[in-house]
Amino acid sequence: MNACFGERLAEAVRAVGAPAALGLDPHLDRYPARLRARFAGRSGAEGRAAAASAIREFDAEVLARAAGRVAAVKFQHAFYERLGSPGVAALEAGVARARELGLLVILDGKRGDIASTAAAYAESALHPDGPLGADAMTVNPWMGFDTLEPFAALAERHGRGIFALVRTTNPGSADLQRHGEPPAAHKVAAELARLAPRARGASGLSSFGAVVGAQVPADEQRALRALMPDAWFLVPGMGAQGASATEALGGARTDRTGSLVVAARSVLFPDGKDDAYEQDFGSWISERMFGFVNALR
Amino acid sequence: MNACFGERLAEAVRAVGAPAALGLDPHLDRYPARLRARFAGRSGAEGRAAAASAIREFDAEVLARAAGRVAAVKFQHAFYERLGSPGVAALEAGVARARELGLLVILDGKRGDIASTAAAYAESALHPDGPLGADAMTVNPWMGFDTLEPFAALAERHGRGIFALVRTTNPGSADLQRHGEPPAAHKVAAELARLAPRARGASGLSSFGAVVGAQVPADEQRALRALMPDAWFLVPGMGAQGASATEALGGARTDRTGSLVVAARSVLFPDGKDDAYEQDFGSWISERMFGFVNALR
Repeated sequence: MNACFGERLAEAVRAVGAPAALGLDPHLDRYPARLRARFAGRSGAEGRAAAASAIREFDAEVLARAAGRVAAVKFQHAFYERLGSPGVAALEAGVARARELGLLVILDGKRGDIASTAAAYAESALHPDGPLGADAMTVNPWMGFDTLEPFAALAERHGRGIFALVRTTNPGSADLQRHGEPPAAHKVAAELARLAPRARGASGLSSFGAVVGAQVPADEQRALRALMPDAWFLVPGMGAQGASATEALGGARTDRTGSLVVAARSVLFPDGKDDAYEQDFGSWISERMFGFVNALR
Repeated sequence: MNACFGERLAEAVRAVGAPAALGLDPHLDRYPARLRARFAGRSGAEGRAAAASAIREFDAEVLARAAGRVAAVKFQHAFYERLGSPGVAALEAGVARARELGLLVILDGKRGDIASTAAAYAESALHPDGPLGADAMTVNPWMGFDTLEPFAALAERHGRGIFALVRTTNPGSADLQRHGEPPAAHKVAAELARLAPRARGASGLSSFGAVVGAQVPADEQRALRALMPDAWFLVPGMGAQGASATEALGGARTDRTGSLVVAARSVLFPDGKDDAYEQDFGSWISERMFGFVNALR
């Protein structure tokens, strides 16, 4: 377990044969009707507890289907947090179940803060004795590179990983990430490269990765790869956000390693009403996941 | 309740006679021995539940002392989250209690994400029917200005507020915040100024504020104020981090309004063993709070 996260991820990708991760984004309004019935019309604390129980059932089904098929799962912290403490308990249950099933777990909470506060977030998400004990987490570097250190230190000590937000692809992503010369995102990339030697395995890939969206232009993806030859790229944007596998792997190393592509909504939910989904969402998701993983082989 | 947050905060500051907020940062290792005994030597889920119960008792005592003495309380999300779902339940209880006592509540979680994920964080922290229903929250702008919109929209609709991280004072804060020309922090400031007219009350202060640390140099504080004449500044750094009241108010408007100064550890905890604190931490904290508030009058 104390092997570095970068290496464990490389092994997991080899084992499933594709650099694929499944995102768990519980959009409750897109759940099958049977699960929605459980919380429909209920509000307040009672409604949140009922919704959290629907999430538990949905996640258990999805995780059982994902085991052995994707290298990692990524939990979207916000959708659990929206339900308050029962939602956080459902997240804890999902993370524990995923790890039992042998899936690597990435917590996508984009946390960031200073000193002891950053350490508390790191302990919450990554510490083996903490409430979640995930394998890796996403972090936000805006407050400065010293604020990455508590996350990096805990990750290094316990064989866990971080993915710092380097370059996203939402409409306003350039506002700060591309500001200045060199662009601010390149400064973050250089810092991750500086940290890399502290947690690097036999594959040469480090435990200190970067979020780099699939829609980032190809030349910029290559420039970021040149700055971070040893970093895992966590790549959202394929699927619901429309990027192709080629675009999503635009920042991979020349041997095609180093990128982990994540799809969530496009695998979890149909676009509209879908009878097959209503009858057996687990099988429906399995089929979508098969297509997603195959596109990355 | 639907009055804009900027205005409600202005009224709360006038009512207590000082722009003072108390930060609730549950550093468990600095709790009085009687409360530490409750979780000492216990680990795992049981230890976390016991620690969360100690936090509930500590917070209830502190909030009772803070009511009518400070304008707002600021909960440090990370320290609750570290205890998992029982910690989040303790946070929910603390927020509810603070609001019953008439205190404005700021959630300091520095959240940030895109689109529906940002909306989920906003609903979690601020929505009147959500699990927390706080008055305001801190947000991280790194992903781009479109990512502030879901927070701003919910705040505007429900009379709540946001404080975007503009300029912090940790050692590496300049890495990205001062990068480029104009510095990236100034771009965030300009964006907050652009949003201000959407939620501005009779005092002229808007609900879209900025975190600006007390140790930011005076000329830079004034430059940020010039860029954001209508913004509330949430100012950490007085007390444990060593800034004076004059420094902390360096970004205030010419009428001395517009800054809300927060102290946490310096008010909540003695530096070493302290018999008076062990015997009656509530009275000890009251006295410290009195000194802090008075320094800001």
